[in-house]
Formats: sequence, structure tokens, C-alpha cells
Amino acid sequence: MLSKNQLKYIQSLHQKKYRQQHGAFLTEGAKSVQEVLRSDFQVELVIATEAFYKENAHLTDYQRTSFEIASVADLERAGTLESNNAAIAVVRTKENRPLLAGPNEIALILDDIRDPGNLGTILRIADWYGIRKILCSETTTDVYNPKVISASKGSFTRVNWWYGDIVQLLHQSASVVPVYGAFLDGDDVHTLAFGSSGYLVMGNESNGIRPEVGQYVTQRVTIPRYGDAESLNVGIATAVLLDNWRRTMTSVSAT
Amino acid sequence: MLSKNQLKYIQSLHQKKYRQQHGAFLTEGAKSVQEVLRSDFQVELVIATEAFYKENAHLTDYQRTSFEIASVADLERAGTLESNNAAIAVVRTKENRPLLAGPNEIALILDDIRDPGNLGTILRIADWYGIRKILCSETTTDVYNPKVISASKGSFTRVNWWYGDIVQLLHQSASVVPVYGAFLDGDDVHTLAFGSSGYLVMGNESNGIRPEVGQYVTQRVTIPRYGDAESLNVGIATAVLLDNWRRTMTSVSAT
Repeated sequence: MLSKNQLKYIQSLHQKKYRQQHGAFLTEGAKSVQEVLRSDFQVELVIATEAFYKENAHLTDYQRTSFEIASVADLERAGTLESNNAAIAVVRTKENRPLLAGPNEIALILDDIRDPGNLGTILRIADWYGIRKILCSETTTDVYNPKVISASKGSFTRVNWWYGDIVQLLHQSASVVPVYGAFLDGDDVHTLAFGSSGYLVMGNESNGIRPEVGQYVTQRVTIPRYGDAESLNVGIATAVLLDNWRRTMTSVSAT
Repeated sequence: MLSKNQLKYIQSLHQKKYRQQHGAFLTEGAKSVQEVLRSDFQVELVIATEAFYKENAHLTDYQRTSFEIASVADLERAGTLESNNAAIAVVRTKENRPLLAGPNEIALILDDIRDPGNLGTILRIADWYGIRKILCSETTTDVYNPKVISASKGSFTRVNWWYGDIVQLLHQSASVVPVYGAFLDGDDVHTLAFGSSGYLVMGNESNGIRPEVGQYVTQRVTIPRYGDAESLNVGIATAVLLDNWRRTMTSVSAT
């Protein structure tokens, strides 16, 4: 049974302020909770239906994780999903450790991505394209927002992120590794040869990359347009650019 | 001033049943209403704030479109958007005319796309990649759903669609033009040469392409995966596949 205090605690984690205060966030729904139980995240509490508990208890580290049986009504009251007939996990946030693109590695830099759905989608895309490091401006939406975690479809367990001063970081790195940036007036990615390592910078949904970040971009890139839409969504653009990058790297290594 | 009957009529168009009964749908927000006024759609009624009316009245065909001034509160009560400080247009739906891919043309076939956000995103992507025809299974979500219209960001005015029996259509067309279909076990799109015309079939969010549709696919295609995400969202996959198709066509015509 879920106590009043547990309910209150879980509900408080809908808000960034309390996630930061408690160093914890929520993972909701069968698949996300299973993935987080299998990951290196520390799960402090799982509330779950009896059916979910019976099927998944073996995934739990009993020394570190408490389990509470809850009704579907409790899960929906405690969490943010409209329907949840499985589980919610309360998970410890990770330390905010600096990340840098290594040799033969592509890393993403997100400059002020505001929409949680977009950020979650970008985590999933990064995971598909084998990108393990995402560097976020401090103004980028909180990755621990339940909507981000949910939209990432479990990919948050396989991608690492850092929030910090990306201008300062680029100031130190841009002379060492190439910095690609998505603009509307860059070079056509269908004819560009990407290098084997570097950063890809994606900008804000409405305003693109800020000038103070753009000044460190060494290669402006653009997805060619064949019709009349004004723009592509930032998640879509991230996928298409990473696909072109990976495609070019493949053909380079194949020759 | 918005009358009670007008309010009731507009609210009824949130539902598919009434959109079909009245042959009308809603377009909401400044940009979408401006785009629909400039398009070949027949707009029967615009309700708008005074500011929007003053700026955009010149776009209206007075003989066919009524204009009503409304408050922001009225707009939000009548429409589906959480915030709308500009306008709502009531627009006539178009006749459901059959579409076929012409020579040197790519057309999309959607087999049971259920999420309105995904369908709207696919319209926008089609518009970016110059795809003008979308053929939808009868089970694909209604394109006139306000969430589809809104997610398409105005692209619904530039893309044509048809809803009908796509199995029957493929039965007649598959021997004439190539039919590409997105599967998890198809040929790698990074090494495939697409032809200059044909269909691209995208399947349901959970179950992919139905076997009765899949039997007509002449080329199964797959986006190569470099990491661990289980899948890509269907909108993302549509964009990446169309980008690869256009990229191949470009390099063919360039040689």
C-alpha cells in the first residue's frame, strides 16, 4: 500500500525544483521501469501492480530498492501518465559530470532545446545512431522531466548528458575537433563529407543556434529542401543529420 | 460576437463524426489560419481577435467567408488549443479523390498510422521533401483532426491525400511502379539506389506494415542502426527514408 507521504513525495517529483532538491526523478510505465531496473541507475522505490511485481521482481536489487504494491488508480494519481497499469520507479539522478567528444566519436550539443517531447525524441535518436554523449546548454529543458524520460522510450538509460556552459566548452574545443551546426544557410549535407569525429550542434526550436554558440561552428550544415515546408522539427532534423553523418562515415571506411 | 450556435458548431468539429456530417474542419492559430486563407481551401467562417482581423482581412474572399470578432476567451472555448490569441477558421473538407504516383514522382502510403501528432508531422515532412500525394488506409487517423492540422504547421495546405483501400490500390499498381516499404529486416538504405518514382509504405506505430499490404512491397528497406534504441518513431523514419531517397536521386541526376 502506498502511504500518503510516498504519494506526496512521488507527486513532488513532477516538478524540477523538487527533483533537484531530492536528487530523484520518475520513470513510468512497464517498459521504462523494466529498462531502468536493468540499467546502472540506482532505483530507490518501485510502486507497481501485483502483476508487474510478480513478473519483474527478479530485476530488482533488494538491498537498494523498496517495492510497494499499488492499484492502477494509485499509479495514475501518483504519476504523470494518463494511463499506467504497470509501475512507477523513483530513481536517483546522476552526478552532472563534464563530457567531451573522444577520438572517432560524434557528440551532440543542444543549445536551448525547450520542448520536453523534442528532448526525449533526441535521446532516442542519439541512442539509435550510437551517440553516447549529449552536452546541453543550461537553458535546455530538464532531462529528468517525466515527459522527456517517457518520450525517450528507455533510451535515457543508454545515453549520457551534461548540463553546463557550452559556450565556454566550445571556446576550449572548437580548435581541436570539428563543430558542425544546423543552419538554414549551410552546406548541403547530401554532398558534404563529414569527418570521423566532432560535435553536432542543434539550436532552439524557434530561434536556432545562438550567435555566441554559432561563432564556434566550423561547418554550417543544411538539409536540402525539395518542397515548401518552412522548416523541419528539431528532432527530425537531428535524425536526418546524424543519418547523413553515419552514411558518409560508412562509405569512407568502405573505400 | 460569437453566437451560441456558432460556438456549438465549432465545438462539434472537434469530433470526426460531426466533421464528416458537416463537411468542415478547424484550423487554429495565427499561422495556420493565414496559410489556409492563402490556400485553395474554401474557408466558410473565421473567428478572430480584432488585431488579427485588421492584419489579415485582406486575405479573405468576402463573398465566401464570414468574419466574426471574438475574444481570446471565446477562441479558447471554441477551439482545441490551450492558448490561441489570434483566430480559428472553419474550412470545407475536400472531396476524397483517388491519387496515384505519376512518372518521376514519389508518393507515400500510410498503413494504419494512428497518432494524430505523427500524421501531422508526416504531412510536414512530405511537404519538405516535395511529396504531394499521401494515400492512407481507412484505419489511418483522420487528417482533419485538429491535432493533425496543427502538427502539420500549415503543410496540410500543400499536400493532397486520399483515404481508401490501399490493398486494392497496390494490387493494381505494384507491377507498374516500385513499392518500397519500411521494415526492420530490409536492405540498408545507405547502400540502396532508389528509383526515380514509386511508393514508400510506412506502417503502424506498434505493428508495422500489415502482411496484406507487405505482400505488394517490392523493396524492403531499413535504416541502419548504430546504437541500441529498439526503433525510431514513424515520423522520424519517414524523414530519414525520404532523405535517403532524395539523396540518391540527386546523385543519379548529377552523374
